[in-house]
Amino acid sequence: MDDKRPLRIGLIGFGCVGQGFYDILQRQPELGLTITRIAVKSPDKPRTLPAERFSFRADELLADPNLDLLVEVIDDPAEAFRLVSAALRQGRRIVSANKAMVARHLPELVALQREFGGTLLYEAAVCGSIPIIRTLDAYFSHEPLRAVSGIFNGSSNYVLTRMSEEGSDYGPALAEAQALGFAETDPALDMGAFDPRSKAVILAAHAFGLLLNPDEVLNLGIEGVGAADIAYAASLGQKIKVIAGLYRLPNGRVTALVTPQLLGPESPFFNVEHEFNGVAIEAEYAGPHFLQGRGAGGHPTGSAVLADVQALRSGFRYGYTKQAARFQAQLVEGLEVEVYLRHPSAAALGQALDWLRLPAQAVLPGTDGTQATGSVGLAALGQWRVALREAGVFVARLGEVGLIPEVPAEAETAHALA
Amino acid sequence: MDDKRPLRIGLIGFGCVGQGFYDILQRQPELGLTITRIAVKSPDKPRTLPAERFSFRADELLADPNLDLLVEVIDDPAEAFRLVSAALRQGRRIVSANKAMVARHLPELVALQREFGGTLLYEAAVCGSIPIIRTLDAYFSHEPLRAVSGIFNGSSNYVLTRMSEEGSDYGPALAEAQALGFAETDPALDMGAFDPRSKAVILAAHAFGLLLNPDEVLNLGIEGVGAADIAYAASLGQKIKVIAGLYRLPNGRVTALVTPQLLGPESPFFNVEHEFNGVAIEAEYAGPHFLQGRGAGGHPTGSAVLADVQALRSGFRYGYTKQAARFQAQLVEGLEVEVYLRHPSAAALGQALDWLRLPAQAVLPGTDGTQATGSVGLAALGQWRVALREAGVFVARLGEVGLIPEVPAEAETAHALA
Repeated sequence: MDDKRPLRIGLIGFGCVGQGFYDILQRQPELGLTITRIAVKSPDKPRTLPAERFSFRADELLADPNLDLLVEVIDDPAEAFRLVSAALRQGRRIVSANKAMVARHLPELVALQREFGGTLLYEAAVCGSIPIIRTLDAYFSHEPLRAVSGIFNGSSNYVLTRMSEEGSDYGPALAEAQALGFAETDPALDMGAFDPRSKAVILAAHAFGLLLNPDEVLNLGIEGVGAADIAYAASLGQKIKVIAGLYRLPNGRVTALVTPQLLGPESPFFNVEHEFNGVAIEAEYAGPHFLQGRGAGGHPTGSAVLADVQALRSGFRYGYTKQAARFQAQLVEGLEVEVYLRHPSAAALGQALDWLRLPAQAVLPGTDGTQATGSVGLAALGQWRVALREAGVFVARLGEVGLIPEVPAEAETAHALA
Repeated sequence: MDDKRPLRIGLIGFGCVGQGFYDILQRQPELGLTITRIAVKSPDKPRTLPAERFSFRADELLADPNLDLLVEVIDDPAEAFRLVSAALRQGRRIVSANKAMVARHLPELVALQREFGGTLLYEAAVCGSIPIIRTLDAYFSHEPLRAVSGIFNGSSNYVLTRMSEEGSDYGPALAEAQALGFAETDPALDMGAFDPRSKAVILAAHAFGLLLNPDEVLNLGIEGVGAADIAYAASLGQKIKVIAGLYRLPNGRVTALVTPQLLGPESPFFNVEHEFNGVAIEAEYAGPHFLQGRGAGGHPTGSAVLADVQALRSGFRYGYTKQAARFQAQLVEGLEVEVYLRHPSAAALGQALDWLRLPAQAVLPGTDGTQATGSVGLAALGQWRVALREAGVFVARLGEVGLIPEVPAEAETAHALA
């Protein structure tokens, strides 16, 4: 069944991931994979290959019948969707690393594959080099899962690690992450937890059969994090990590959220540092699993793209088994979580406490009114999410995944993000 | 391509794994997988199902054309090989969990699949619920690897963890592991590191294309471990774990060994406790990876068997890609490693030092001549392995995987185990 013939690949995008993938193939000519054409957007940008290697119209690659498969690794989700959906309409085999695009268009992408017989794989879109999608989709295809959670963004994790290690401030740590190529072009995607939210949405489909609108999932970022927060966590023997979590509740529904979280050495994520990502899976029969690997960088992500190319060659496709009724879960967000909040100004923090209906006693003693902890509903956090970010309030969950209070079905409340 | 028809399964063996697999299928009737027949060896053993459910001749299942696939989960490697090879000669699809059988017969099993078109999967044979074989075989099929190492035996890890947690002695901790169903029928396989050696041999094929004779791989067990060893490790802030390691050296060759090892909190294995297993993969492009999960128990291992059954259904088979010349490595054991040795009798320890040509200064001060450390060749350890075990000397590697000295090709020496 394996397709051992040499394959001609059309590569769309030649940024960090595209170059990483290109480089790996150059070093392994015996694989019989040739990048015949490369399409990029800008004719003017200086590149590591001669100009004649490039096409500036991706549609030329789509129209080229000599290309056996396509690899799409561009930044722009709208253009990526246009290209990938056009390729699938042709019944083509295509690999994408665009998490925002896949997260937003998963139902259409699944439907297009079913209708036209093409195949889309996107392992590189989630957690870089960690084979998490195929593990959830194929290995755990028929195992009910209790939770999938983890550090899904190497860039914000790098920033938090550097702040913790070096006492760096947020700005310099971010600049360092960007210089190392660990950050998206728009840092707000990483630091605002939009990028890990896209990844959580993708994993929700493979782990729980949940097709979520990314906008429905609560995401809180680290734009407001400061040395005081790192120090507060350290005083508890803890670290701050951005944790994306999908948790099945006792009522069978699933909650999804992406927030900074304080966690201690008992957490599998405590030692996941720098650009590394980690994923914990709680499986009904197999028990707890943990996977760790590089979440960013040209070679690690390029390696995941190559794994997908080889998987296409051997006929692999995602089963999307969990979308069958037996497994499919519904989203619930009517939960309370313990949070920590900080703003350099006591007045601004007081305003945040008002929004979230937290009492004045929530303020931590000895902090001049700048730090507080308390229990708030996910609905309220969702409603005030934008206001909290714009006001520069840093918000983090306290306590471990397992500590999320379990609620009976009747206690659920409807929830809509503002 | 997926085979969605209901499948009739013939189950050979109804011990811990067989019952775990049976139980998972009972709870998920919608999978369309029915265990039509079960074969066991002894008609007299009390069982959890009525006697009429069982056949006492596995060959009847082999001869039954109504069975769509077979699952072999018996203890006896010779009988397992007879059954599995007969099934493959019929071109059947079969899942096995027998690590000793697969490790010893891998070349024949690969050849039989190629000749007769059947398929054998054996994910449950290595590291219980961790999808390590398919990760190495499929995901890293074309990525050169630097090292694969880990805790591959839940039973000995359970014993070491309990000794460390509770100050239990070796005997009671072993009895506890056996009572919990984490140990092989013959504890020598687990405690003598024969079981993790079989697993290392299987992973060597998928990770490095190396087809090793298990007898060629050095294995040192924990039969001689005592409270003094746990205490010595603790005095260094370390723990003792049995680590199976496959390491590619700078000369391109691979060394394989399974020994107790002292390791600190910087090791990914430090917090892999009880019956858990952990695997670290060092990949050329993807970088370091780490996987952790339950290494034993009916449900976790049964879950891995089910994953293989579903994989067979969707047409998956191992590619054994690394056996191509590009990746295939040769074994080398001409290395020096730092070791720790202990025997309650100073005379016996002195004898061990003589065997290994360690000087008297190797004895640790303040130990009355009962503990020593020094640098020894793997060849010498292999040569004296049986004598050391019979004398009751406990031997462990000191230091981390990465600290294994790198040797140039010309420094290699031939090596044969006694």
